[in-house]
Amino acid sequence: MLVAVVGVGLVGSEFVNQLLSIPAESSPFRLISLSSSSRTVLFEPANAILSPEKWKTILSTSNEKPDYETLTRKLSGFINPATEVAIVDNTSSDEIASLYPQWLKAGINVITPNKKAYSGDLGLYEQIVRASQESGARFLNESTVGAGLPVISTLKELVATGDKVKKIEGVFSGTMSYIFNEFSTGSPDGPSFSSVVSVAREKGYTEPHPADDLNGFDVARKLTILSRAIGSSSLPSLQSFASVKTTSLIPPALEGIPTGDEFLKRLPEFDEEFDKMRKDASKEGKVLRFVGVVDVVKGEVKAGLEKYSTSHPFATSLGGSDNIIMFHTERYSPRPLIIQGAGAGAAVTAMGVLGDLLKLV
Amino acid sequence: MLVAVVGVGLVGSEFVNQLLSIPAESSPFRLISLSSSSRTVLFEPANAILSPEKWKTILSTSNEKPDYETLTRKLSGFINPATEVAIVDNTSSDEIASLYPQWLKAGINVITPNKKAYSGDLGLYEQIVRASQESGARFLNESTVGAGLPVISTLKELVATGDKVKKIEGVFSGTMSYIFNEFSTGSPDGPSFSSVVSVAREKGYTEPHPADDLNGFDVARKLTILSRAIGSSSLPSLQSFASVKTTSLIPPALEGIPTGDEFLKRLPEFDEEFDKMRKDASKEGKVLRFVGVVDVVKGEVKAGLEKYSTSHPFATSLGGSDNIIMFHTERYSPRPLIIQGAGAGAAVTAMGVLGDLLKLV
Repeated sequence: MLVAVVGVGLVGSEFVNQLLSIPAESSPFRLISLSSSSRTVLFEPANAILSPEKWKTILSTSNEKPDYETLTRKLSGFINPATEVAIVDNTSSDEIASLYPQWLKAGINVITPNKKAYSGDLGLYEQIVRASQESGARFLNESTVGAGLPVISTLKELVATGDKVKKIEGVFSGTMSYIFNEFSTGSPDGPSFSSVVSVAREKGYTEPHPADDLNGFDVARKLTILSRAIGSSSLPSLQSFASVKTTSLIPPALEGIPTGDEFLKRLPEFDEEFDKMRKDASKEGKVLRFVGVVDVVKGEVKAGLEKYSTSHPFATSLGGSDNIIMFHTERYSPRPLIIQGAGAGAAVTAMGVLGDLLKLV
Repeated sequence: MLVAVVGVGLVGSEFVNQLLSIPAESSPFRLISLSSSSRTVLFEPANAILSPEKWKTILSTSNEKPDYETLTRKLSGFINPATEVAIVDNTSSDEIASLYPQWLKAGINVITPNKKAYSGDLGLYEQIVRASQESGARFLNESTVGAGLPVISTLKELVATGDKVKKIEGVFSGTMSYIFNEFSTGSPDGPSFSSVVSVAREKGYTEPHPADDLNGFDVARKLTILSRAIGSSSLPSLQSFASVKTTSLIPPALEGIPTGDEFLKRLPEFDEEFDKMRKDASKEGKVLRFVGVVDVVKGEVKAGLEKYSTSHPFATSLGGSDNIIMFHTERYSPRPLIIQGAGAGAAVTAMGVLGDLLKLV
């Protein structure tokens, strides 16, 4: 299988390294193209990139600008009954996501941790599904939820084998997991909310602007992706992540602040509010967790702060920036199927992407 | 894909029901053969069995005796570039397991929850791997560990994408899980061991002879299956499940008692011993759990009773007959990847089998 990689940031670089660490003689893949936002290279299959040491230099010394029309045309030209092609989109770009239908129509498989196409407008998603059905090319997006954890494949298997999903509930954001594992342990006291967010940012757990995590949209996007994998037409979240009932953690007075630095400087003004929520939860023997829920029975999908008993797995079992996902189904009842582990980070995200690629061969 | 089913007991029947509940017009499968220990039917692809209501009658009114040589020959005859064939072995038979190399050589895919071939002598397993490599036919055995939980597929993906497995640790037996979740909760007192085992047997959680669970061999077999999926040559368990350091829970004086009834009548003589272990664990703030460990770093593989702190997930998070499996790897470190849920039962086991079949198409 010929592979073209778009996006060579943290996840993209790690992905290329993992891909090229499969010994060439046993690898079913040939890496023939790399694109960053400013440069691109594309080789004939016989001249595929093999060296984990040299790919960065090969790309950085190219003078070609990315041109996705040319890429699509040339890649299609390589497809024949003995040769499949896959594009791996490691960007988080809306623009690249909008190209998936065109790639799939051309018979090119699409693998990505990019949530945009799968959580955005239903129109684009339907085009993707239709294009894949028409050409037989496949799209896989395991690492859009839970990074390398087997979340989407498990959900698809439950559905395909005839199980009925009743509810999916989980901590889906590594950032939110870290923040609340530190902030709310069941005790009425602890570090201030703003200090926890600051440390999370220093450790690289948040986006440069923490409001991009605290708005809850990352969780809402994941819930739309799961809703579409369930396929139940009663879920409002099918439409787009904007249809998820999302409760932002950004204090209204801090909405629209342009920089992360300024945001963090003002966040302490709201520490008392967050502290009161922690104290209230503690009084009930509970902790605060930012969770996502897809309730198929009630037709309700929401992302927001909830309280859980200190004996609940969301309180006892989580640490670091772990994700935890509980599938309540007809067969996994009364006790759910649970998947837990690191839900963010380049190594595990790239692993999920490579795992998808391996499913194609 | 043409499907032949061998074994129509609890799991086998549920599997056939799940398979036939996929609407025929969208199903990629055609069920053309069923075999029990005493009867068999085999149809031409055009006359495949479609009715979830009638398959039992079709089989029970057949006068044909199972004949696996004929079955193999006829199924091979159906294979062509457009038609694949799979045999689903839902028995726990050593004899059927010994046929896998022959089936794979003939180009027939093999799917099974039967642990025998994958946990028995290395010789048979190597024949299976070789036969699959030669013909390209595939073998999948997800439901040999954790029933429908995605345990083996997750492990294979970790390995295939270059992660290094350091240790796998878990509660792998639904029966042992139930017994110790009931028997040892952290408190020094509780129901007697023999009464818990009796109730478990009444609920159908144990084999007819509870010693077949208490010997720990079921867990040892699963550890050998996982060891082979890891493929590290340092693991003694690769050789066979008999090479796993297994600590049986059968009191030596009760070894070899022929019937389950007699065994249960005498088990109360040993309640005091088990009670003492529970009290000792409780004094240390711990619970007893029957676990399996594959320690790749130490090259040690063992099944036996261990003590875990009452705050450990094996104590806090388990219930019913749940399995829980922790993967400690280079990437999932310091916190493991965890999979948890019902690890026994016909519905979830059959689901794992059907999930494997879906991976083939």
